[in-house]
Amino acid sequence: MIRFYNCRILTENYEIAENSELWVKDNKIEYIGKHKEGVFEREIDCKGNILMPGFKNAHTHSPMTFLRSYADDLPLDRWLNEMVFPMEARLTEEDAYYLTKLAVAEYICSGITSAFDMYLFPHATAEAVRDTGFRMTLCGAVNNFTSSPKELEESYIKYNNYCENVSFQLGFHAEYTTDRSILEDIGAIAKRYRAPVSAHCSETKKEVEECIQRHGKSPVELFNDLGLIDYGGSLFHCVHLSDKDIEILKEKDITAVTNPASNCKLASGIAPLSVLDERGVRLAIGTDGPASNNALSMFREMYLATALQKIRQNDASALVPERVIEMACKNGAYAMGTDNDCLKEGRLADITVIDMHRPNMQPENNILKNIVYSGGNENIALTMVNGSILYEKGEFYIGEDIERLYEKCRSITERIKKASVGTLF
Amino acid sequence: MIRFYNCRILTENYEIAENSELWVKDNKIEYIGKHKEGVFEREIDCKGNILMPGFKNAHTHSPMTFLRSYADDLPLDRWLNEMVFPMEARLTEEDAYYLTKLAVAEYICSGITSAFDMYLFPHATAEAVRDTGFRMTLCGAVNNFTSSPKELEESYIKYNNYCENVSFQLGFHAEYTTDRSILEDIGAIAKRYRAPVSAHCSETKKEVEECIQRHGKSPVELFNDLGLIDYGGSLFHCVHLSDKDIEILKEKDITAVTNPASNCKLASGIAPLSVLDERGVRLAIGTDGPASNNALSMFREMYLATALQKIRQNDASALVPERVIEMACKNGAYAMGTDNDCLKEGRLADITVIDMHRPNMQPENNILKNIVYSGGNENIALTMVNGSILYEKGEFYIGEDIERLYEKCRSITERIKKASVGTLF
Repeated sequence: MIRFYNCRILTENYEIAENSELWVKDNKIEYIGKHKEGVFEREIDCKGNILMPGFKNAHTHSPMTFLRSYADDLPLDRWLNEMVFPMEARLTEEDAYYLTKLAVAEYICSGITSAFDMYLFPHATAEAVRDTGFRMTLCGAVNNFTSSPKELEESYIKYNNYCENVSFQLGFHAEYTTDRSILEDIGAIAKRYRAPVSAHCSETKKEVEECIQRHGKSPVELFNDLGLIDYGGSLFHCVHLSDKDIEILKEKDITAVTNPASNCKLASGIAPLSVLDERGVRLAIGTDGPASNNALSMFREMYLATALQKIRQNDASALVPERVIEMACKNGAYAMGTDNDCLKEGRLADITVIDMHRPNMQPENNILKNIVYSGGNENIALTMVNGSILYEKGEFYIGEDIERLYEKCRSITERIKKASVGTLF
Repeated sequence: MIRFYNCRILTENYEIAENSELWVKDNKIEYIGKHKEGVFEREIDCKGNILMPGFKNAHTHSPMTFLRSYADDLPLDRWLNEMVFPMEARLTEEDAYYLTKLAVAEYICSGITSAFDMYLFPHATAEAVRDTGFRMTLCGAVNNFTSSPKELEESYIKYNNYCENVSFQLGFHAEYTTDRSILEDIGAIAKRYRAPVSAHCSETKKEVEECIQRHGKSPVELFNDLGLIDYGGSLFHCVHLSDKDIEILKEKDITAVTNPASNCKLASGIAPLSVLDERGVRLAIGTDGPASNNALSMFREMYLATALQKIRQNDASALVPERVIEMACKNGAYAMGTDNDCLKEGRLADITVIDMHRPNMQPENNILKNIVYSGGNENIALTMVNGSILYEKGEFYIGEDIERLYEKCRSITERIKKASVGTLF
């Protein structure tokens, strides 16, 4: 049993419980409360720092670390077709394994304890998650070019029975990459398992306009009409939504996952988070992949979620930090279907420790506002996933030497870049 | 003499010089180049990390650390009148001294080596700068309520002859807080010393509209017509500019200092940086004060400078990172009039070391893009100002125990908050 003492704990109700301690037994939270006697393998003096549930990165593409700073400053369609797809075509299962591990290292530096990951190599990703001790919900990425409804169903069964840190949800890439017949087949699988389905949705204006041309309706309407979201699910981005779209999201209990940094960088727009929140749509937050963000930091995303809303709404009171933290912790857990939404006895021990002994966290007029408005990765003192400490004081405990991992990922990247010369340029 | 070896150095031309070393003698850069023999007091193995000129925080209000997370989620006028001014009225010289030190600690965590600081207690700020070893250019803050042209002139003489890390520039708060007669007096001082003048300018739409009502012209036009900017200067924020304003900025060689995080958070808008840059106006970057940002991180500002332009221009290629780094390093130095714009023999030794051995910096497809798009304070391994190391591996060397400083700033904040009860609420 591990004992965290001398803590301040962010409670289920987003209040700060002073002078608290938290015990972890195996992979769960055993006790939260005032000091009492116990026997422990390790006792960690938190020095008054904040224990909070780890952040949930509700949309990402982990293996894309190799494309960080490779294809920047381009609009989404050129970025995808000219730079990302040709490089991805050269990626192997083994590459994806190491590149995912690099993303995991970055997640835990940012207090992230689980990620909702959509990519092409579910097996490599699942192995990387198992081997690092991180937690992920994999999301199907079916489209016209890769994978199929059949493979999706196989993955759904396989990776929901793979290891305790891995789960799988039905999903496809996006309307603009996936024919209607494939969507219909996925709808049938969703119905058979009464399972949620997730996908990219309404990320750019162009995507929505072309969908309307093709199908006479928006992506959200199309997914709804095809029965794809009858059992819930998450829609990623949700930048360009109609009133009718928002009604459907609410009615079908969909989580709208926002990716503010990526939407800025690719000039896709600012998602209507305040409107969605007021209309009662559940919001979660994701980094998107390292090729389009490029950081995998939940501090950046949380800050942008609120700061950009103020610009969008022309209202400095829009989307307050307290709400953003709820999105980043609780709502992300709902989207992924994991039992780690808050710090509570019996919940999974997915915890991060916020170092308040840094200038950007002082003074403490409002701790939650400090975290969202001033916080950064430098404030992550420790990250625990499933009861194991994966990151502490700048050191990584992910079953892999970090320098060796950097070297491996650099050599993968160089190999793919070399192979691309002459075809890309 | 201090030797940094095993470095990659960001050159004057924003290229990376591999396998380099850099020597610091007293407060200056003595040598940059390949290995050669020398005698040193200390030799620092940089492990392949990037040595670059420190970031210049070209607009801030350092002592406002006590207001961090105190008055968030309000528009500029209510934020200023209802929350900031009543709290500031209770601030003492001694308070400002410690609160500035807290800001300095935060700056050096973010690789910032100098700041252009506008606030009410120049003496307290100058003392804090001298005692920490940081570098600041103080900016006059004259307005209808505090200070005067006479005091401004006295400060100009005094703090340009105070200590080698401190300089002073003429300045006033803003048009909307300063009567025309005061502006005219400041114009006369500027003329007498042939000195630049700096001020807040065109931060909100309301400010510009009211200035036009009062004076029949925009703030930039007014300052120009009054001869205030005949010898250059910096205008802070520059969010709402007309074509004519932009022409004036160019003609008078003014630095437009952008504060993207603050402009978002207060819903002031997105400054037209791409337009200014294309029109040849020099741009620098500042954090603004901790009451309106709330972080004092140049990584946040650099990221937002480019990311928000992409949204504003609806163009993912807008304002590339390479340009943003130049604004954050070189142009800020120009604004402050300090000889620390780049790493070059003879320049002031204001240096920061970027830790590339972190997951967010890997792989290295493009180091400058990594710094702007993925970098954060966790990547600052060391910060040197004027030849002295003020921050290294998370430890502070600013002549003050950091925990004592936190405690001091917390108690100042609590005292002022208590004194404000009953008057504010």
